Amino acid sequence: MTTTPTSAARPDDLRRHNRALVLRRLHVSGPSTRAALAAETGLNRSTIKALVDDLAENGVVAERVPTRRTGAGRPSLLVLPQPNAVVVLAVDIRVDQVAMALVGLGGQILGRCSWGLRAETRVPRETLTKIVDNCELLIEEAGVEVAAVGASAPGVVRRADGLVHEAPNLQWTNVPLGAWLGKALDLPAYVANDAELGALAEHLRGAARGIDDVVYIGADVGVGGGVISSNAPLRGTDGYVGEIGHMVVRPDGLPCYCGSQGCWETEVGEAALIRALGLPDDAPRGVIAAELHQLATQPAELMQRLGEFAQWLAIGLCNLVNLLCPRLVVLGDLFTELPPKLIEHVTDLVRKRSMVSRALGGVRIVTSSLRNDVKLLGAAELAFEQVLATR
Amino acid sequence: MTTTPTSAARPDDLRRHNRALVLRRLHVSGPSTRAALAAETGLNRSTIKALVDDLAENGVVAERVPTRRTGAGRPSLLVLPQPNAVVVLAVDIRVDQVAMALVGLGGQILGRCSWGLRAETRVPRETLTKIVDNCELLIEEAGVEVAAVGASAPGVVRRADGLVHEAPNLQWTNVPLGAWLGKALDLPAYVANDAELGALAEHLRGAARGIDDVVYIGADVGVGGGVISSNAPLRGTDGYVGEIGHMVVRPDGLPCYCGSQGCWETEVGEAALIRALGLPDDAPRGVIAAELHQLATQPAELMQRLGEFAQWLAIGLCNLVNLLCPRLVVLGDLFTELPPKLIEHVTDLVRKRSMVSRALGGVRIVTSSLRNDVKLLGAAELAFEQVLATR
Repeated sequence: MTTTPTSAARPDDLRRHNRALVLRRLHVSGPSTRAALAAETGLNRSTIKALVDDLAENGVVAERVPTRRTGAGRPSLLVLPQPNAVVVLAVDIRVDQVAMALVGLGGQILGRCSWGLRAETRVPRETLTKIVDNCELLIEEAGVEVAAVGASAPGVVRRADGLVHEAPNLQWTNVPLGAWLGKALDLPAYVANDAELGALAEHLRGAARGIDDVVYIGADVGVGGGVISSNAPLRGTDGYVGEIGHMVVRPDGLPCYCGSQGCWETEVGEAALIRALGLPDDAPRGVIAAELHQLATQPAELMQRLGEFAQWLAIGLCNLVNLLCPRLVVLGDLFTELPPKLIEHVTDLVRKRSMVSRALGGVRIVTSSLRNDVKLLGAAELAFEQVLATR
Repeated sequence: MTTTPTSAARPDDLRRHNRALVLRRLHVSGPSTRAALAAETGLNRSTIKALVDDLAENGVVAERVPTRRTGAGRPSLLVLPQPNAVVVLAVDIRVDQVAMALVGLGGQILGRCSWGLRAETRVPRETLTKIVDNCELLIEEAGVEVAAVGASAPGVVRRADGLVHEAPNLQWTNVPLGAWLGKALDLPAYVANDAELGALAEHLRGAARGIDDVVYIGADVGVGGGVISSNAPLRGTDGYVGEIGHMVVRPDGLPCYCGSQGCWETEVGEAALIRALGLPDDAPRGVIAAELHQLATQPAELMQRLGEFAQWLAIGLCNLVNLLCPRLVVLGDLFTELPPKLIEHVTDLVRKRSMVSRALGGVRIVTSSLRNDVKLLGAAELAFEQVLATR
């Protein structure tokens, strides 16, 4: 299928484009031989040689003779991305904690820290100050130079400038997080919705690697979703990503703070799961996980207590599958604790109720493989996207 | 925002890319001066001159001195796309009729025909035969050469080969429409979902011109939707587009043939509108339109009879807005008959219930400006996309 051209191409763009292509390949797929790079990018060997030589001269990659030789003749040199050569800072802001990491070229975590948030420490300015302090400590410890910062926030984010328009569970409204981070750290700063970054991370480094059409759903206090469609992140007007958790699944359901009622979040978010399990309202994450772990061995009891929860989960997933035709759905955060039997049951329900799922021969539903690091890695990739394209 | 490179660029691609860019610009925006083409494409004047000279030599464009001169000096030549130079056949298959047209470069309809479908004439093979016969007649009348065929079908279509997987309201299953059309007409043939083509047409030539993020909803017997996201059509796995009409909005609603219940289609499709208006089950389109036209002048009566219908319409739209963050929603087919007062009311409901609508400063909801021709023009653009990219 051809694509419709939307902007002019110039000879000067070629080299930069191809350099970014090779660098990106190494970042995402790891060490490769020159021959493999040529095969995978479609560039000829002499172009690859020139690009790699230049990257090596700048210390961004190193080359060595592979230890295991394949076939006769001169072996193709192995090109290794150098983690410390390009480093970004990743920040994952959640309702109950902030996690930070330095991530190097190739996706390796070079240092990390985290701290808890409570209602009184969740104020934007205080959070920012702590991020800046910890950033300095992390950089000092790792002894690296940071090229950019990527941050994840649980709310409606304007991609162009990283304005957090509304993050209801943090009680943040119109916080210019991107501008603040950029200024305070003196770095290019990028901010995105947490579930969008979950989708990005699973797509590049997790359960959805190599799959072009993916929906990621994260359930924390709220429920959010991110979409990879035709191998690219789905964004709407001004770069906003959707609020999947506020899809109405039960028109006569509980009122939601968003102004609607019966939102998916109110039916399958943390509070709903706690209700379904019959746990106290303030049950901590560990208790919920332990309860689910125990239920996993009692199928009858599991279905009795979580049967209705599964129905609502399935209805929302059906809607997403019918709208977006993904090959794979990845469930993250709290949902990673759901027993496999329940996931199977939900998958069956989706297949029965979704004509698109049937057209696709059944959509797979799995839990996140990156688990707790998913948004941190997504935030790093958000920064790498920009850094590697212009390197 | 930079984009991530996914394939190699080569010098040979440049000229083809830029030629397609200019041709596309002329096709979509109509006659332009060389100066405007340079400004809009970002190509320099000598490149534009070479490309336009070449197109003129091949009869694809003509040049003339503009009648109205602006400013002093030598006027920039006006470049006019020649409709007969590149012609495609567009086919719009609906539940109750087939419409066909020859569409020339620039989007002009050069000839058209249509015929009604009934249950007994809706069989795929018979429909195909009639399309082929009428195509020959149209071509003979217009005296043109056809470069490709684009077709619209109301169902789940696999874009890669134009297989109509399931078109429930036509009662078609696994019809290889793309392969059949291609073989019978000896032309490249492309098939897509009708609502996807509605979105494409409104985006290029209708109410959504120049808007990057658009949702189009068409309500005929069924309800379908197409999405333009970041200026490109949204497609999922294998090029399938979503079945927006089968989003569940009323979990305890009427059973739907798709295996689910309370689908949006069952709540706001033609049958639902007929129920809400209290008309006989088999009321023809004209009677529905007349009834709506009359209600438009009686606001109280309108809200009494269509208030609940509006609620369901709004809930589905909220879900789409919350998921896809469009700038504009275009309502097509039967929905174009809805009174403006009702559309305003629905817009208000969406604003109240959707946090994304509020983040975007309110999403506009309008009715289709291309009305009955929307899918025909969309089918033509589907074919032009391919033809102009390789011309």
